Amino acid sequence: MNYGIVLRVLGDILLVESLLMIPSLLIALYTGGSDINAFVITIIVTALVGLFIRRNRHGKLINAGDGLAIVAFGWIFASAFGALPLFLSGHLNYLDAFFETVSGFTTTGATVISNVEILPQGILFWRSFTHWIGGMGILVFTIALIPALGIGGFQIFKAESPGPIAGKIAPRIKDTAKILYVLYFGLTILEIIMLKIGGMSLFDSMVFTFGTVGTGGFAIKNNSVAFYDSTYIHLVIGTFMILAGTNFTIYYSIFKKKFKGILLDEELRLYLSIIVVAVIAIAANLYFTSYNNLGLSFRDSYFQVSSVITTTGYTTADFDLWPSFSKGILLLLMFIGGSAGSTAGGLKVIRILILFKLIRREISKIFHPRAVIPIKVNDRIVPNDTVASINSFVALYFVIFVISTLLVTLEGVNLESAASSVVATLSNIGPGLGFVGPTQNFGAFHNATKVLFTFLMLLGRLELFTIIALLAPKSWRR
Amino acid sequence: MNYGIVLRVLGDILLVESLLMIPSLLIALYTGGSDINAFVITIIVTALVGLFIRRNRHGKLINAGDGLAIVAFGWIFASAFGALPLFLSGHLNYLDAFFETVSGFTTTGATVISNVEILPQGILFWRSFTHWIGGMGILVFTIALIPALGIGGFQIFKAESPGPIAGKIAPRIKDTAKILYVLYFGLTILEIIMLKIGGMSLFDSMVFTFGTVGTGGFAIKNNSVAFYDSTYIHLVIGTFMILAGTNFTIYYSIFKKKFKGILLDEELRLYLSIIVVAVIAIAANLYFTSYNNLGLSFRDSYFQVSSVITTTGYTTADFDLWPSFSKGILLLLMFIGGSAGSTAGGLKVIRILILFKLIRREISKIFHPRAVIPIKVNDRIVPNDTVASINSFVALYFVIFVISTLLVTLEGVNLESAASSVVATLSNIGPGLGFVGPTQNFGAFHNATKVLFTFLMLLGRLELFTIIALLAPKSWRR
Repeated sequence: MNYGIVLRVLGDILLVESLLMIPSLLIALYTGGSDINAFVITIIVTALVGLFIRRNRHGKLINAGDGLAIVAFGWIFASAFGALPLFLSGHLNYLDAFFETVSGFTTTGATVISNVEILPQGILFWRSFTHWIGGMGILVFTIALIPALGIGGFQIFKAESPGPIAGKIAPRIKDTAKILYVLYFGLTILEIIMLKIGGMSLFDSMVFTFGTVGTGGFAIKNNSVAFYDSTYIHLVIGTFMILAGTNFTIYYSIFKKKFKGILLDEELRLYLSIIVVAVIAIAANLYFTSYNNLGLSFRDSYFQVSSVITTTGYTTADFDLWPSFSKGILLLLMFIGGSAGSTAGGLKVIRILILFKLIRREISKIFHPRAVIPIKVNDRIVPNDTVASINSFVALYFVIFVISTLLVTLEGVNLESAASSVVATLSNIGPGLGFVGPTQNFGAFHNATKVLFTFLMLLGRLELFTIIALLAPKSWRR
Repeated sequence: MNYGIVLRVLGDILLVESLLMIPSLLIALYTGGSDINAFVITIIVTALVGLFIRRNRHGKLINAGDGLAIVAFGWIFASAFGALPLFLSGHLNYLDAFFETVSGFTTTGATVISNVEILPQGILFWRSFTHWIGGMGILVFTIALIPALGIGGFQIFKAESPGPIAGKIAPRIKDTAKILYVLYFGLTILEIIMLKIGGMSLFDSMVFTFGTVGTGGFAIKNNSVAFYDSTYIHLVIGTFMILAGTNFTIYYSIFKKKFKGILLDEELRLYLSIIVVAVIAIAANLYFTSYNNLGLSFRDSYFQVSSVITTTGYTTADFDLWPSFSKGILLLLMFIGGSAGSTAGGLKVIRILILFKLIRREISKIFHPRAVIPIKVNDRIVPNDTVASINSFVALYFVIFVISTLLVTLEGVNLESAASSVVATLSNIGPGLGFVGPTQNFGAFHNATKVLFTFLMLLGRLELFTIIALLAPKSWRR
């Protein structure tokens, strides 16, 4: 590992992070909250540590391993310092604050706090703002700001971008990162305006928007979006979650007026089809079992399907009380997740699409055993290496899921709770079923299990191999 | 499809089946049971129908599709006629009798009967004997008896052999089939003798042996093997289940004195390692939670792990009452299943092994992005096509699992019961958790759900693609 360049970039990240905390400090100052000192100290410490570890470090050429190390440590460092306001303001012990901040940056939205409404405004803003930063990527943001990193830049971008194929929009990574952030910013402004129109305060509009476009899910109300009994607000947030779970290159194509390609995009079509089928199936199930109100069945189904497939985790209903069929569909959506190149987690729709194509090819092969049939997406052949990577990814996802679920069962919770708590963190959703259902939180788990969940959130957000590779002894050789 | 040859072989199968019912008839006659007429009628009808559909049919060359059609219809026909004794003797309606017989032939062992002890001896014998026939394969047995089928013989053998790689022991399929049946017969005789030594009656020894070596699990006692409170009997059945879940080519190697290859066989090592780890983990979990008796913890853990990983389904304890950690391990073993080329169901250990190798290769690729690393098992390269088939198989298995689980939840059972009932049938195990736990049965489900389970048992036993391919319109062209 080339420690020089790794440390320089880590220093850059901390400097950027200290700047990103300033809005939260301003809110703390404006509201005169108890969190002013916590932010002042954190900003100074973070900036100083950043300056200290980056001084006299240079170098440019980075290899694949260095890129991964930068990403993995970047996220861990950013969370470690980002946790300080919650810890220093006296609301959580350090481990819980770290859990909460990793949950924020990874856009999971799993919380250990049972009453969020007592937190000061600055803290609430920072907590939700971590979703916004983490959604597009801490490093992608840094790449957009700092000088070129050499060949490793793409590696970093790839490691942080959800999905098997990192779409370079512009020839230079730095330009791609900037375009993505412009689109992200546009989506953010649009949702804030629309929520404001719906009668939300500016503050509420902002924090809920951060949680939506970052597909995070931290709420500032104890009963999440259910607090607002407004079909308009449910529809706006529900729809923006779907938009945030869409591949951002789609928006770039709209911007460039390439409409035909969008309509034919196979991942987008599958993503929207899954949503439509799931919404109808759950709405019907709710209507015929307990709801007896078709409008409300569709409203709750639409919001919960959007929230879960995009791995956001906002709730407007306690879906843990829904019939098994509806819960089963939601659990399935937790595994699937959103589109590649979006802010969502999970396996990603593109991987599911390719697995379906693999199955279809295998059936064809029974009749044509000697035929060589390539896997195509949007009329382009997917290289065999990429197909193999996708298979390995899905296999590793399930290996991690199974081992973690068994570890969580040692807490004494039932299998449904254990399994859903693992997928809720690994797919960066937040709430699960049973013990971690929408009305529950992660506070009651033992510290060891919280550490496991923290690890799973990072694993999920950085798409497994970034973190796993770092555990290989090879990574640590100079 | 070449209907001539397909019908001729189906006729052969029915003729063979009518012969295989004669021992059950003899037992019915000997015990003077109420089932004599049922067997007499069934044998005559089955033989006549067999003779009728095979007359004037000939042809030799069969293509891949014909082979699959023969296997799929062969199993369905054999079950349809095999169900007649249970139906005609008045114990079950025809759908339930068909479910029970498919469960027998597919070596699932899921039952719809709550009190098996009232059934006549002939019926009990036939019910368990279907496990023995189905374990090695209805068609493999037929292949061993009837004249050569041409190139399609291997296709049939492949479709019926569990696992991704059909091991031809002898150059001719017919010889391979004969060798396999000799080994199977040897294992059967050995277990009958050992159970007899343990104090079981000859009848009980035989039926429990059929259920063991076929990894079926139908019991003739309502509380399964728990009826015998004998550590010796638990150990014998537990160990023979493991032997039956081992690749039979291992026994042929022992017979040929090729011991070195056996010890290094990667699938065998992983299979035994999983068993050892699972037995210790569950025994420890039981000991520290409820059992307080180390010997009993190991005895029950050993038996249940053997029973579940080999997809047999015999029980000596109600594992549905065990802690979540133990239940979670058993649920995992239900997916894994036994070794390829054994009588067990599930995904098969070899596929899990190859998935692990895929993951390891993907991690290596991070450090050596341009390296071409082949997947090897026992020092032999696994062709890319086989790896792709394995991935597709696992993906299809989960697709079927998920869709079926959602359908079962419409019965109103919880997710754990629904999921475990699906894996219990798809992996050909028998009992699951909750609503289909060891003390429960499948009798309470609606008819539509029973049809689904019947379909899943056949899908699982014939390794998915055989049945799926038959649903493709291509199969039906002449």
